[in-house]
Amino acid sequence: MLKHVVKMRPEDNVAIAVHDLHIGDKITGDIVANAEIPQAHKIALTNLTKGQPVLRYGVILGYAKEDIHAGDWINETSLELPPSPDLSKLTYGENIKKDLPKPDRTTFMGYEVPGNQYSGTRNILGIQTTVQCVVGVLKVAVDQIKAELLPKYPNVDDVVVVSHAYGCGVAIDAPEAKFPIREIKNIMKNPNFGGQLMVIGLGCEKLTPNRIMEAEDINDDNLLFLQNFKGFEKMILAIRQMAEKKLAILNTHTRTEQPLSKLSVGFQCGGSDAFSGVTGNPAAGYASDLLVAAGGTAMFSEVTEVRDGVNFIAQRIPDQPNCNKLVKEMSWYDNYLAKGGVDRSANPTPGNRKGGLSTIVEKSMGSIAKSGTAPISQVVSAGEIPTKRGLIFNATPAGDFTCGPMQLASGMGLEVFVTGRGTPYNLEAAPVIKVCTRTDLKEFWQDLIDVNAGKIATGELSVKELGTELFNFIVDVASGEKPAAERLKLFNDIVIFNPAPMT
Amino acid sequence: MLKHVVKMRPEDNVAIAVHDLHIGDKITGDIVANAEIPQAHKIALTNLTKGQPVLRYGVILGYAKEDIHAGDWINETSLELPPSPDLSKLTYGENIKKDLPKPDRTTFMGYEVPGNQYSGTRNILGIQTTVQCVVGVLKVAVDQIKAELLPKYPNVDDVVVVSHAYGCGVAIDAPEAKFPIREIKNIMKNPNFGGQLMVIGLGCEKLTPNRIMEAEDINDDNLLFLQNFKGFEKMILAIRQMAEKKLAILNTHTRTEQPLSKLSVGFQCGGSDAFSGVTGNPAAGYASDLLVAAGGTAMFSEVTEVRDGVNFIAQRIPDQPNCNKLVKEMSWYDNYLAKGGVDRSANPTPGNRKGGLSTIVEKSMGSIAKSGTAPISQVVSAGEIPTKRGLIFNATPAGDFTCGPMQLASGMGLEVFVTGRGTPYNLEAAPVIKVCTRTDLKEFWQDLIDVNAGKIATGELSVKELGTELFNFIVDVASGEKPAAERLKLFNDIVIFNPAPMT
Repeated sequence: MLKHVVKMRPEDNVAIAVHDLHIGDKITGDIVANAEIPQAHKIALTNLTKGQPVLRYGVILGYAKEDIHAGDWINETSLELPPSPDLSKLTYGENIKKDLPKPDRTTFMGYEVPGNQYSGTRNILGIQTTVQCVVGVLKVAVDQIKAELLPKYPNVDDVVVVSHAYGCGVAIDAPEAKFPIREIKNIMKNPNFGGQLMVIGLGCEKLTPNRIMEAEDINDDNLLFLQNFKGFEKMILAIRQMAEKKLAILNTHTRTEQPLSKLSVGFQCGGSDAFSGVTGNPAAGYASDLLVAAGGTAMFSEVTEVRDGVNFIAQRIPDQPNCNKLVKEMSWYDNYLAKGGVDRSANPTPGNRKGGLSTIVEKSMGSIAKSGTAPISQVVSAGEIPTKRGLIFNATPAGDFTCGPMQLASGMGLEVFVTGRGTPYNLEAAPVIKVCTRTDLKEFWQDLIDVNAGKIATGELSVKELGTELFNFIVDVASGEKPAAERLKLFNDIVIFNPAPMT
Repeated sequence: MLKHVVKMRPEDNVAIAVHDLHIGDKITGDIVANAEIPQAHKIALTNLTKGQPVLRYGVILGYAKEDIHAGDWINETSLELPPSPDLSKLTYGENIKKDLPKPDRTTFMGYEVPGNQYSGTRNILGIQTTVQCVVGVLKVAVDQIKAELLPKYPNVDDVVVVSHAYGCGVAIDAPEAKFPIREIKNIMKNPNFGGQLMVIGLGCEKLTPNRIMEAEDINDDNLLFLQNFKGFEKMILAIRQMAEKKLAILNTHTRTEQPLSKLSVGFQCGGSDAFSGVTGNPAAGYASDLLVAAGGTAMFSEVTEVRDGVNFIAQRIPDQPNCNKLVKEMSWYDNYLAKGGVDRSANPTPGNRKGGLSTIVEKSMGSIAKSGTAPISQVVSAGEIPTKRGLIFNATPAGDFTCGPMQLASGMGLEVFVTGRGTPYNLEAAPVIKVCTRTDLKEFWQDLIDVNAGKIATGELSVKELGTELFNFIVDVASGEKPAAERLKLFNDIVIFNPAPMT
């Protein structure tokens, strides 16, 4: 028989509904549902008086705004948000787990990139832009390149334009301009671009090549400015010629056996619901632990979604410097939100709330679950490339289409994306594996979801079993298997995070 | 004989080089060039001691950092920036010109849009998105729609996706979120979309339909959420079906004679040089005056590029409320830049400096020239739709690809873009006329430039003659003639201005 509710920890005084609950449904013991409670929403397991803490994951999600009876529906209107953890009181190193699960596989079939700490999962010609102004001409050129040149180079998977909204009309020397500049610079280094650089500029923009390229790479083989060409046809010809040279080089690259220590996987969740923290994210966390145990790199991110569980993250950091860095990143984001007149409660979406996530604390605890249990080997700023392997906390914004490109910049070869409400999000530069949190969604979006973690909620599979299945699929996708969104060619735009002013 | 230099006002103590000047070139009177002075750069016409003001357009561009001799080259390294005009001391109504030039044409052939104050210059199916998440699926659908459906509806010019980086992962209730929300909402109302609404959402995003659509428009005819469809194929089918219904309606629309009072033209400049304020922008200003005299709407924008000449703008505002609004908009931007750790000196680009623009004051005086001489009938916030006709100051950021979409939101049917350095910038939702400031650029970019205002610098045509030619071309393009970038199908992405935090 399927379970009615899922309770995470013995001390919890709420559980979440595995399916829609109806008034009078017997839940457990003598508790009966007092309301129509939607799937994934919380039901009270005890009586609570106004002001008492509501506990899930053993953590205070909020305080009861009114008296609550056992069997009542608890949602975002029922809770007062607790203060977020005090950054000055974080302690590190208190939860360093050594006994990670052992993976059966330790290699994948990838593309080695000389000089790059990571190997690619795809063999893509990436064309980077210094500025949005060039995108119109570039799109015309790339349509021709894809139709006429790419078929001549069958070992190359795709041609991807890194089109972005940055490059000019921006305060390029503002303190926070470091974010978009670093992101654009590091995206070019993504291993899926095979170590080839192709940069198209206009010629009068603020984002000059020296800001995003190494001095030795700034030459006519890698960079052209449209303003140097006598008219449209000559621009197109020049772009095609540069592309063909790069395609010829990329075409010589082949998949070889690579240790998993050369794979970087980004983990993200989006359109989350209350199952995210029960099914999809714990399964992702188990896969993450397997990857880390195999010597690979697993990145988790999304500052506003870990802010309320930051103490749990700090405990998994073995050393003071990385704990300090964590505090610095969190403080930066606190200030950034405050300057914009908001706080971390701005994070949850209407979909999150509909999916039973009542507060950012609840969302955070679910979000953190996807980091598994491994120690955190390094904390990096948004868009930075880690210098260590293992589990990395990458301090990016939490929005799906903002976080993904940031993880690309940090070297991600593929992404695991856990979704509760369902999103077709995908990136052209790295494949995205879609994990759903509920069986209903898998059945509804058969052709868009790769892995159904809903089987954990229904008791069909354990977190370990599903996490192992996901780990194996990660290795297969890294080796060339196409997840759903890649097969369907669903590609989101590359959104660059720019907290600095536009001029 | 061609002129060596252009001096704008009798009181100016500098002039700009019409072409590259060489050491020893006789300039005027007994002044001889003391340096190799690049085209468009400034040459001193008198001796100046350290601290003395350098005047162009009768305005102080800056103060001499060192002693300067007549014939010296003056560039961005020579000048100390003056303080920007004090917003608390602006006076309005002191320069209200009534005698605008008289246009020969007062109508264009456009698309009337019931309920819209403006008529369209194109007949486009615009597909709006609530959130970036849907863009991958939408692009697949639109490729099919363009290939299979659009040919069946020959009166429809194009299908355009309003793809943007907003909609989720953002602080939707932040004070400054009003900017992106208003912009997205109003872009849908652009007359070139023929009054048809087609909005694609995901279903769990923060930018809910009620934030960007009128209550009466929120229905299944105009809006669909991908999360409501059982898998990819059903999503594509639903998008195609909605698109086909809209295409059938748009296909019944035809061009009819419309008064110019129903045309809104956005004026912008980008990649500016020191000729922008001598040739391209004054010609654009003359065309703007003709359009205003014909009852039409001319918008100029770019806050950081008018900030240093804001007193000249205030003088052309006839009333206190609009002058107050000007002050409010300028103050907002001053604060916005200050919060980001910069000021208006962050505006000029490397290309501007290479093009002889030494300070933001000099850039501003050139930029303002494109507003002509008409009184300013209304000041609107970025992305607002004016309620008055005539000359509108639209307080947008100055970056080309940020300002253009803002002007689309304000109802622009076509754009006039003046460029000195050269840019292929263009929008898919409204044609962009490219005016160059120098004959060299026209010769170099024959196929990308529509109107050569360089003829003013060489004395071949007057501002009046070239402005009239531009006005006529505006009316022709509004009536269906394609400018260069539209013929070549060069389309930039739509960049939304979001000064509020990402979460």
